[in-house]
Amino acid sequence: MLVTETSLRKFTTGIFLAMGCSTEHAELATNVLLLADLRGIDSHGVARLTGYVRLWEKQRINARPNIQIVHQTPTTATVDGDAGLGLVVAPFAMELAIEKARQYGSGWVAIRNSNHFGIAGYHALMAVEQDMIGYALTNASPLVVPTFSNERMLGTNPICYGFPAGKYPPVIIDMATSAAANGKLEIAQRSGKTVPEGWIQAKDGGYTTDPFALKSGGGLLPLGSDREHGSHKGFGLAAAVDILSGVLSGANYGPWVPPFVAFLEPPTDPVGAGIGHFVGAMRIDGFRPAGEFKDHMDNWISRFKSASRVNEEQGVIIPGEPEFEAEADRRANGIPLVDAVVDDLNEVARKLKVSPLAP
Amino acid sequence: MLVTETSLRKFTTGIFLAMGCSTEHAELATNVLLLADLRGIDSHGVARLTGYVRLWEKQRINARPNIQIVHQTPTTATVDGDAGLGLVVAPFAMELAIEKARQYGSGWVAIRNSNHFGIAGYHALMAVEQDMIGYALTNASPLVVPTFSNERMLGTNPICYGFPAGKYPPVIIDMATSAAANGKLEIAQRSGKTVPEGWIQAKDGGYTTDPFALKSGGGLLPLGSDREHGSHKGFGLAAAVDILSGVLSGANYGPWVPPFVAFLEPPTDPVGAGIGHFVGAMRIDGFRPAGEFKDHMDNWISRFKSASRVNEEQGVIIPGEPEFEAEADRRANGIPLVDAVVDDLNEVARKLKVSPLAP
Repeated sequence: MLVTETSLRKFTTGIFLAMGCSTEHAELATNVLLLADLRGIDSHGVARLTGYVRLWEKQRINARPNIQIVHQTPTTATVDGDAGLGLVVAPFAMELAIEKARQYGSGWVAIRNSNHFGIAGYHALMAVEQDMIGYALTNASPLVVPTFSNERMLGTNPICYGFPAGKYPPVIIDMATSAAANGKLEIAQRSGKTVPEGWIQAKDGGYTTDPFALKSGGGLLPLGSDREHGSHKGFGLAAAVDILSGVLSGANYGPWVPPFVAFLEPPTDPVGAGIGHFVGAMRIDGFRPAGEFKDHMDNWISRFKSASRVNEEQGVIIPGEPEFEAEADRRANGIPLVDAVVDDLNEVARKLKVSPLAP
Repeated sequence: MLVTETSLRKFTTGIFLAMGCSTEHAELATNVLLLADLRGIDSHGVARLTGYVRLWEKQRINARPNIQIVHQTPTTATVDGDAGLGLVVAPFAMELAIEKARQYGSGWVAIRNSNHFGIAGYHALMAVEQDMIGYALTNASPLVVPTFSNERMLGTNPICYGFPAGKYPPVIIDMATSAAANGKLEIAQRSGKTVPEGWIQAKDGGYTTDPFALKSGGGLLPLGSDREHGSHKGFGLAAAVDILSGVLSGANYGPWVPPFVAFLEPPTDPVGAGIGHFVGAMRIDGFRPAGEFKDHMDNWISRFKSASRVNEEQGVIIPGEPEFEAEADRRANGIPLVDAVVDDLNEVARKLKVSPLAP
């Protein structure tokens, strides 16, 4: 089904309103989800909406959060999300980081007591639009095994860096710190295919290419896949994200991070509140004039785009460029949704007495 | 040869003094190099000393730099290293970041016109010792190919995050963003062995396990090794390091970064000055009380150390712990140096009229 941006926006806002979100929050949460769909990151867009609803039904998401700054200095702060949607908590925190950067050059906010915050790129882009460097991280429910372990201790813990450019789209490096994202496994599960070695590990820590191994106690491997290829680096990155998001903010961390899915209960011995994020903003002109920086970014981008190719048909991909192109295309031509997602959304809409999704 | 810390320190300071460094700079540069040797990161310690001397002989390193802050806000700055040793320029910048963090919560400094800065971990540890989170990055001469390219466009561009803990040693995540470090290739070259697939790429972009492929136009692969295993993420990380270190500071970036070896000339069309670094510090108590954070870090560390093991004999390695143990051992029992390094050092010592290395 091909849906216009306007139609999908109206539908999504309707669901959030039906959950009891304020108009402001419903529109903001919709913005975050829609940007994922527009940018072609389908796993993090409206496909997740029904998951949020189910967590809200279980009272694990608070639709009317009292988001508060609980601690701060001129350029740092900790925000308590009051169990709200990460989709509204993280933008609140990034606004604060941007305001601090405006005044003092940089701003850094750790967030606790939150939930899934959508694509990290949304939050980094908020800073990029202000001629700042944006930084956004989040921890997530444990699916990834550390090097040498067969216990799921870390989430896919994404890191995002956003840099403004001049004539080119901003460079948005938004990446899970695991070798493969969970969404890719789900695709393999649905199609009945095996996955490449180095993506997952069997329950006993052994070799597997079976995408269902994750559901039977296996784990995702860190970026690098095995020790010889640097999985300790992927583990290190995921650890840094976990510490900044969880330990620094007072959220849960490691295996204590509550699951995103409503059918799994959170641990009964939490070490903090909810899941954690970390966002930051630095003014470009805190380092050099923004125009100068952007000219050099353009030069950086065009030099990398012209790097010699292994195969003539495929050049170097500048991080963020495919998403920028998808966004232009989907804003103009609509957003494709798979049937399973549409059915799921309409079922939730029926329950919440919201009009079904129109094309 | 096993050398005491005191003896190696005296020798190294002597070389830097003979280059014309001030006493303060000679001692600081020695501190940075020695910490690498003490922590077992032999590739970044005194083994590099003769390389610095050769660059100085070619007037590409300035032994008497006038290191200056060229731009700043309360929490950001750009430092020009005046072509000095990165070993003294980066600590100057980190001192500034720490001072800004003391006043405003965080401090971030981009550095241009510098040279190789030793181990990133040294600089991050400076912040950690002040109950701050430390962050240190550097770009480096191009050896790494982006995904889909066979052109060496990026350095091994390390990232370091340092976090203080309580009863445990600090967590120091100090990692190259390539699948394997160049030092590991050199070991394979010396021993005549092949290297694992996924470390390097042949000149034409094809498969190779020949460690000499790098010397005949091949390239190191980014962390992730190939597209299917996330090499675009390793490329993205290396790109973020390059932009923060080079584009933001006004240093060279990408293929323009000057080589570390004196026998290769720097590009004749520089886009900036020297190589670039980026360092930062954030006060822990800008987010939550430091004692609370450290208690949770201890909990984080002990939980990860007790994660279930794939093989009983090898548990999860906490980043920074092996280096901490090496440091205790080598401070007490001396630093082992291979003969080739000792010979090299003594040859340079003879030239500079410095007493040879004593045990």
